Amino acid sequence: MPELRLNLVTREWVIIATERAKRPIDFKEYRETRTIPSFLNTCPFCPGNEYKTPQEHFRLSAEEGWKIRVVSNKYPALNPQGEKHRSSDVFKRFVTGVGIHEVIVETPVHNLSIAQMDLRDVQDLIRVYQSRFINAHNDPRIEHAIIFKNSGEGAGTSLEHPHSQLIATPVVPIQFRDRVQAAMHFFDDTGECMFCSILRKEREEGTRIIIDTDNFVTFIPYAALSPFHTWIFPKRHSASFTSIGEDEIKDLSFHLKTLLSKVYYGLDNPDYNFVVRSSRPQDSANLYCHWYLSIVPRVTRTAGFELGSGMFINTSLPEKSAEFLRAARSD
Amino acid sequence: MPELRLNLVTREWVIIATERAKRPIDFKEYRETRTIPSFLNTCPFCPGNEYKTPQEHFRLSAEEGWKIRVVSNKYPALNPQGEKHRSSDVFKRFVTGVGIHEVIVETPVHNLSIAQMDLRDVQDLIRVYQSRFINAHNDPRIEHAIIFKNSGEGAGTSLEHPHSQLIATPVVPIQFRDRVQAAMHFFDDTGECMFCSILRKEREEGTRIIIDTDNFVTFIPYAALSPFHTWIFPKRHSASFTSIGEDEIKDLSFHLKTLLSKVYYGLDNPDYNFVVRSSRPQDSANLYCHWYLSIVPRVTRTAGFELGSGMFINTSLPEKSAEFLRAARSD
Repeated sequence: MPELRLNLVTREWVIIATERAKRPIDFKEYRETRTIPSFLNTCPFCPGNEYKTPQEHFRLSAEEGWKIRVVSNKYPALNPQGEKHRSSDVFKRFVTGVGIHEVIVETPVHNLSIAQMDLRDVQDLIRVYQSRFINAHNDPRIEHAIIFKNSGEGAGTSLEHPHSQLIATPVVPIQFRDRVQAAMHFFDDTGECMFCSILRKEREEGTRIIIDTDNFVTFIPYAALSPFHTWIFPKRHSASFTSIGEDEIKDLSFHLKTLLSKVYYGLDNPDYNFVVRSSRPQDSANLYCHWYLSIVPRVTRTAGFELGSGMFINTSLPEKSAEFLRAARSD
Repeated sequence: MPELRLNLVTREWVIIATERAKRPIDFKEYRETRTIPSFLNTCPFCPGNEYKTPQEHFRLSAEEGWKIRVVSNKYPALNPQGEKHRSSDVFKRFVTGVGIHEVIVETPVHNLSIAQMDLRDVQDLIRVYQSRFINAHNDPRIEHAIIFKNSGEGAGTSLEHPHSQLIATPVVPIQFRDRVQAAMHFFDDTGECMFCSILRKEREEGTRIIIDTDNFVTFIPYAALSPFHTWIFPKRHSASFTSIGEDEIKDLSFHLKTLLSKVYYGLDNPDYNFVVRSSRPQDSANLYCHWYLSIVPRVTRTAGFELGSGMFINTSLPEKSAEFLRAARSD
């Protein structure tokens, strides 16, 4: 019998479709192995081609050249210049499209994924995420920001060179508002942060945990939206990603690299997205929001049902997916 | 300067990314033309292979054989048998996965799309949608149902033979609840159905209208989530699709066939999804909900930003897309 499980954070029902269920290994598709070179002359993010990118906002220097660069997106979704204007009538709510759209070039090496990176370099990347996130929120026009990564064409990128993005918007998306509201209601019902509670419960049960260390827990949520949909939760309550300290940065880097390695080896390098879900730095003391990192390997495709209902059909059992990734090789 | 526009129905902000904007014709990609046969021996939906499908629930007979068949999905997301049980603690909300998952085989002809179908056959299809939707809601376990179509692999189907699906769930998805709430608030603010108001406003402006006849209006919404995202709105207020009469069925069929033809010829047969968004037949007298049909050609791909924010980036101007589809050939 299939099960419907409610994702407490999104309040979306997920159909865990046991009759369609696949074994975790069935999601390991044979993928064409292409040898990606470590340097590509035509790549705008490869060393020597720095002139091909728009304005550079930040550079982490190496002994020779650089380790990480942050540049404006060449085709920005939002315009960094200009004033924020709103207009609003009964039918049309309009805001000028000002905001920030940055590309974080994660490494000078064209074919080096986070799964293969040196752990110290992942730590540097997290530090850069943190500083760019803070920087975006220093702009008074900005109300919300996300940091995300699209890895592979199936995850929505055409650029092969490892990069993440930051988009900071002049409005708060309804998705974020809805999650805050769900968290607030939980807090009002129980006097506790929903995420802290979920974490305690997940650790008690243990069946969906993949990695558990001093500062973070990586697990497949009870109502995972898709196979191997994974959350990295900080143990210490904080609403904002920007509040994490050095020990947490190191531990988070370990979780991110290890999980992405398990996905890489266990599922044969699928495309994936990840996103840092966080409140603004100004709101880090909020008692009911709790930042986290969400990873979605793109092993299935959403279709008309998801579009039309907002519900998801997950053809894998979260407990089995977690078991599989726990056992998967990570180096 | 890009614009942010609020979709009143979903309350999602959409970034209309003018700096990334493409001309409508740029979405017409060269697609490999495969000659699809009108009959395929191995296709479970082709005539003669009826024994390959699970239980048949409905058949519209033709002089020879059949015109439309409705069968159970071979790999149903929900189980038609069994009782509905809920269990609920602070962390886990669980419902047994009972429900209905049907496949509507639209035609015996393996390669006949709705765009190419005889208009009378499209009318029959709409009638079958209507009767299956009513039938699903006669089941007391069912709280919500959607009818949708995935056309092409990029839209989530692996079966080429033209078919639609009905999924009826034992819960109401949060997406539907949120839309009802938005519609209720609008009604409380203005004393009018939000959809009726939008329709009046769209017809006054005219710039986003594609087809306007006695009973229906096909248009690109002001805050379209993606290029060529299109709504077919009934002019007569009703919360449920099941309340439409014969004249409306004929007119709706004309809109659906014409719009899909324009998409077919104008954009060179892209993959697409459509979905009927409707309240239950029991709720058709509701004053603030209004059923409609939504069509999403899959000419772009969502990525980490959409996943992480729930906002959409639309790289086309809705007014330009509408102009393009207005002019596009439909036969």
